[in-house]
Amino acid sequence: MKRRDFIKQASIGAVAASSVAAPAIVHAGKKIRWKMVTTWPKNFPVLGTGANELAKLITKMSDGRIKVKVYGAGELIPAFEVFDAVSRGTAQMGHGSAYYWKGKIEEAQFFSTVPFGMNAQEMNAWLYYGGGLDLWKQTYEPFGVMPAAAGNTNVQMAGWFNKQINSTKDLQGLKMRIPGLGGEVLKRAGGTPVNLPGGELFTALKTGAIDATEWVGPYNDLAFGLHKAAKYYYYPGWHEPGTTLEAIINKKAFNALPKDLQIIVENACKVVNQDMSLEFTAKNNAALQTLQQKHNVDVRKLPDDVLAKLKALSHEVVLELAGKNPAAKKIYDSYNGFYTQVAAWHDISEKIYFNVR
Amino acid sequence: MKRRDFIKQASIGAVAASSVAAPAIVHAGKKIRWKMVTTWPKNFPVLGTGANELAKLITKMSDGRIKVKVYGAGELIPAFEVFDAVSRGTAQMGHGSAYYWKGKIEEAQFFSTVPFGMNAQEMNAWLYYGGGLDLWKQTYEPFGVMPAAAGNTNVQMAGWFNKQINSTKDLQGLKMRIPGLGGEVLKRAGGTPVNLPGGELFTALKTGAIDATEWVGPYNDLAFGLHKAAKYYYYPGWHEPGTTLEAIINKKAFNALPKDLQIIVENACKVVNQDMSLEFTAKNNAALQTLQQKHNVDVRKLPDDVLAKLKALSHEVVLELAGKNPAAKKIYDSYNGFYTQVAAWHDISEKIYFNVR
Repeated sequence: MKRRDFIKQASIGAVAASSVAAPAIVHAGKKIRWKMVTTWPKNFPVLGTGANELAKLITKMSDGRIKVKVYGAGELIPAFEVFDAVSRGTAQMGHGSAYYWKGKIEEAQFFSTVPFGMNAQEMNAWLYYGGGLDLWKQTYEPFGVMPAAAGNTNVQMAGWFNKQINSTKDLQGLKMRIPGLGGEVLKRAGGTPVNLPGGELFTALKTGAIDATEWVGPYNDLAFGLHKAAKYYYYPGWHEPGTTLEAIINKKAFNALPKDLQIIVENACKVVNQDMSLEFTAKNNAALQTLQQKHNVDVRKLPDDVLAKLKALSHEVVLELAGKNPAAKKIYDSYNGFYTQVAAWHDISEKIYFNVR
Repeated sequence: MKRRDFIKQASIGAVAASSVAAPAIVHAGKKIRWKMVTTWPKNFPVLGTGANELAKLITKMSDGRIKVKVYGAGELIPAFEVFDAVSRGTAQMGHGSAYYWKGKIEEAQFFSTVPFGMNAQEMNAWLYYGGGLDLWKQTYEPFGVMPAAAGNTNVQMAGWFNKQINSTKDLQGLKMRIPGLGGEVLKRAGGTPVNLPGGELFTALKTGAIDATEWVGPYNDLAFGLHKAAKYYYYPGWHEPGTTLEAIINKKAFNALPKDLQIIVENACKVVNQDMSLEFTAKNNAALQTLQQKHNVDVRKLPDDVLAKLKALSHEVVLELAGKNPAAKKIYDSYNGFYTQVAAWHDISEKIYFNVR
């Protein structure tokens, strides 16, 4: 508690009044100092470095009027306390993903990703042009927090396994680190889902405490060395088909900004939203090749009947989430309505093009 | 000529020195007035309105220090003179697509789209994280012009036809508006490609001057009323799998900006790059439903053997473009190397997910 109070005071105290002249433009006014707490290990590829880029971009576009200092998980506060810290104003910004707050706001999971749900392009279209972002803002409003989409992992890999998955029977008793809705699906398929922070995956897998884990995709998974702890690398990632990463902003801190800085902050998030997704797109294949060619990783497709079972269970789980409370129902209706529309369009555009090219 | 000189002077003369106080922040300095000429009909859905949004965003993020006035095709200059106008400095910015300048720079076509080439996500990943944007900048450098990706149509529709395409024979003698590399492919398949500005498509199709035309996709095509001039609407758009729209900026005008405004201009382009693509994603299906349900449009898939033939010819045409000059070869090698990589990754991620979900 004392530590948090100290941080809060330090944060307020950091607002200074110096000024730097840019060529031909002079900014008079206070320099604003923000803290960004994140759920990622400091400088972790794409996830952590993307948060760093977001901070830098805000500073550069504002000509130094806002400076944002980024903290890795555990530096100021533990990963899963990021939302609370931003809500209280201990930090003005956070970077993570909405499903981490499901203990507090169950329906927030819709704003990260849903098993067998929309991919990155579809999620972003829903958020910006389908009413998703407005619902997300309403969801965080009671906590004094404003969300923005700020990155996307794209379709993830199904994960790392020390047991082969050849049929639905192989899911029975499978002890797998798979959080959120995907974990609930695995449980209904007979497995035992567990949740662990990213930093503990390697050891848990290596020691046999878990049989399998999902994380993100080749580029991120290689960085954690998961290939040294598991034999099989399965695709596709049915459980997280396009996970939105989020920036969260303390509303009071945001409202205190002049209008142009508010617009800069919001649009910096938009830039990073695209950039992180594209960085994953660009870097995953080289990492996959390293995993296969250098580390002899056995890359396998989940069998069709396993995917079919997981899909049926996913629909159950998502519908149950929608039934939890009226807010969840409202978000689900919007999500599902948009998904139905966009999937019909993608059937004759993006999807078929992948198949005929 | 006289008209252009007048415009140029007006543009320079518009730099005023007034100042508006934002809350707590005062900007002293010149107000910059830019013109943006575009290849699109004024306020045309997504294409024209996206250019408007780009202009507004630059103004808002710069707190009014730059104001950008947008001109539709033909308002200041004809559509296909946009590049020259920006190169000369008649306008400081332009919005269009790189393949429009193929008469001047043949290899620029790689920066728009290539038949059977990369989709929107892949193109953007190549541009930002695979060296594409640097090559694009080098390509325009001799003209004093700087490019930025600023929108994407995503996979287009194959187009509107008054003849059914049931086999490769039906391409023989087909008179179709299809510009660029796609047109060259059609020609080799026995058809007659023609080029016409968007505004002339309806009449040409209606009068039978052409048998078919491609344009963009349901949302844009509905706006042009093309369903009133043709019977069949074919997919998928093999010829433009993810057309990058571009902002071009006069280098001298850009270099004269203070650093923070340069970063604002570049990042406003990035924001609009994502936004336009997502707006198409969100709006195409509702337009498709209107076309099918209200206007009884007959939506058809191109037969597999037709697509196979067009694909084989596309590879020929793209390879020939690569052989035109060393610059084209260098761009092709970069494009093709990245495409090979990213397609391998998408085979086990985005593509397979579309197929199993």
